[in-house]
Amino acid sequence: MDVIAAANARAAALRPGEPGILRMEVGQPGTGAPRGAAEAAIRALQSGHSLGYTEAFGLPSLRTRIAGRYASHYGASVEASRIAVTVGASGAFPLAFLAAFDAGDRVAMAAPYYPPYANILTALGMVPQLLPCGAETRFQPTVAMLEALDPRPAGLIVASPCNPAGTMLEPAELAAVARWCHANGVRLISDEIYHGLSYDVPEATAAAHSSSTIVVNSFSKYFSMTGWRIGWLVLPEDLIRPVERLAQNMFISAPHVAQVAAEAAFDCTDELEANRAAYRRSRDLLLAALPEAGFDRIAQADGAFYIWADVSALTNDSPAFCARMLAEAGIAATPGVDFDPGRGNHFLRFSYCGPEPDMAEAPARLRRWLRA
Amino acid sequence: MDVIAAANARAAALRPGEPGILRMEVGQPGTGAPRGAAEAAIRALQSGHSLGYTEAFGLPSLRTRIAGRYASHYGASVEASRIAVTVGASGAFPLAFLAAFDAGDRVAMAAPYYPPYANILTALGMVPQLLPCGAETRFQPTVAMLEALDPRPAGLIVASPCNPAGTMLEPAELAAVARWCHANGVRLISDEIYHGLSYDVPEATAAAHSSSTIVVNSFSKYFSMTGWRIGWLVLPEDLIRPVERLAQNMFISAPHVAQVAAEAAFDCTDELEANRAAYRRSRDLLLAALPEAGFDRIAQADGAFYIWADVSALTNDSPAFCARMLAEAGIAATPGVDFDPGRGNHFLRFSYCGPEPDMAEAPARLRRWLRA
Repeated sequence: MDVIAAANARAAALRPGEPGILRMEVGQPGTGAPRGAAEAAIRALQSGHSLGYTEAFGLPSLRTRIAGRYASHYGASVEASRIAVTVGASGAFPLAFLAAFDAGDRVAMAAPYYPPYANILTALGMVPQLLPCGAETRFQPTVAMLEALDPRPAGLIVASPCNPAGTMLEPAELAAVARWCHANGVRLISDEIYHGLSYDVPEATAAAHSSSTIVVNSFSKYFSMTGWRIGWLVLPEDLIRPVERLAQNMFISAPHVAQVAAEAAFDCTDELEANRAAYRRSRDLLLAALPEAGFDRIAQADGAFYIWADVSALTNDSPAFCARMLAEAGIAATPGVDFDPGRGNHFLRFSYCGPEPDMAEAPARLRRWLRA
Repeated sequence: MDVIAAANARAAALRPGEPGILRMEVGQPGTGAPRGAAEAAIRALQSGHSLGYTEAFGLPSLRTRIAGRYASHYGASVEASRIAVTVGASGAFPLAFLAAFDAGDRVAMAAPYYPPYANILTALGMVPQLLPCGAETRFQPTVAMLEALDPRPAGLIVASPCNPAGTMLEPAELAAVARWCHANGVRLISDEIYHGLSYDVPEATAAAHSSSTIVVNSFSKYFSMTGWRIGWLVLPEDLIRPVERLAQNMFISAPHVAQVAAEAAFDCTDELEANRAAYRRSRDLLLAALPEAGFDRIAQADGAFYIWADVSALTNDSPAFCARMLAEAGIAATPGVDFDPGRGNHFLRFSYCGPEPDMAEAPARLRRWLRA
């Protein structure tokens, strides 16, 4: 948030003729909802539909459509009764944590990690347990790391593709982690919100490998509907009623018009695949040009729209480094300390979901700046 | 929820020619968003606006508009910096509870009460403390009840008008409760979501009487925007940053298109006041006709769209009574046990937000049924 504010301030202070700020710090697509989704919302509004509360778990037609995606996208069988439509993935996490864990429970996750995992757990009286991960495991946890935990944690969060590293677990690795968690009584929460935005590694869902896993997903990334606040959970049978009770009390329902739009978004494949192709082009270009610019230790950028760069050869203070990069090169990126308090001073996150021409311009600017 | 499901099932099973079910169990307006609000949403969608995340506390223009309502509606001064736009009032409660209380804290509230207060507190490890209230205090807590609490609770929730009783605190009573809480270190949470829907007693905001109070409000009731999931908090200075951090992690932001619509709803006074006039007519009619129909011990129906009836002369088992009323009279109402585990078998809640002709038909049906 501070980085975004600093980039906004820098952009506002530009003198006429100065080159613009390249925004590589943002975590949301610049594109809006696909056209067909917005049009479905407009039709619902024009029809005079009252758009009141839906059932706590969402419109049955949307739940059925989401369940169908597990068959079409993964070849997995998931009943619509296990789908809970939520207020974004953000709204899904408190429901999942409260239903699956008790106060005091430890929940493991790779570091670097998406900060709200730890912040929400902490707010709810649970204890995040960080598993420091490096390039040798593509910043992802392994079964060996889990085996070494004594005592065992109550839960594990994995994300593939992950934020900030942009890396994925190979399908066999995800399956092994899911099976290990199931066999060892560790509740797996698989954050799959960047599914749809991957470029080489096949996407697998943890729901296909363990009946006790909770899957979190969202319409914010691939479906490009951030501000609509709409996501979903795939729930194991034993957590359907506990999560439903919590959702009835804490949310009543997800936004109705967003549910209508989300259902229509499933029919917008051409537009969504065009967005993905643009991300892939930006990624390929950055992966080719960043090393020559001086950022040559970067994580395997399998998916999402992030590149996680090891800048330990350039700085021991990533916030200061990012501040200088913004002031001098006009490029905003997020210092690694936001995602890994322990080792984040040696890392930064480039996001490539901004306009393609901006992403294309970034490496040359970075090269000039680092050489100067 | 069970009552709604039973009423739906009964309605679906009607034979041709049978009179319809009168729905007096529902807690949401049958009207949709006011026309001007829906049109603002349509314009935003047609404009191609990306409708991404807003700031965690909402669009500055909406926060300013909400703050302005405190001046125009109550003559109170509330800075826009204290307004947090939330995912409905439902999304506001976890933020308020987590920021204001610790696990184990006791939070007092009148019984009968809105069940999510207690359910959310319990889910977060806090302890609801019920204050049994009766007709003699219009089902509202008093300073005398608070004085009698030893030890003092960490917090108090009041609602005026309240669900289920439909009663209000007089402005002087609310002021006295707010001042007592402030002076005694008890965090007051004032649920004002039914403001705008009152019929005789003047509306006062607790924010005018205590700088430590948290006010919860919503666009769901007076503004008739339930399914949009949009509400707000008025925060005391010391809780602005804690709530903002929680909101960033747990919600990112409230739905963007709902914020656009909500801002426009402030300009829809004619339509909203027409809704209110219809509620008042239904209320007046029911207050006049229910006693003659056999429901003669009813709470002072100051606001919201609820009538809380003491049916102890008719039953000791309000769920069975409501089930029979649905099956035999075709009228759905909510048994009091849903709102007061202790004494709810002697009460039921009629909601009068349904269609006016249905509300007008109810007393005659009830009279025929009770006499049969």
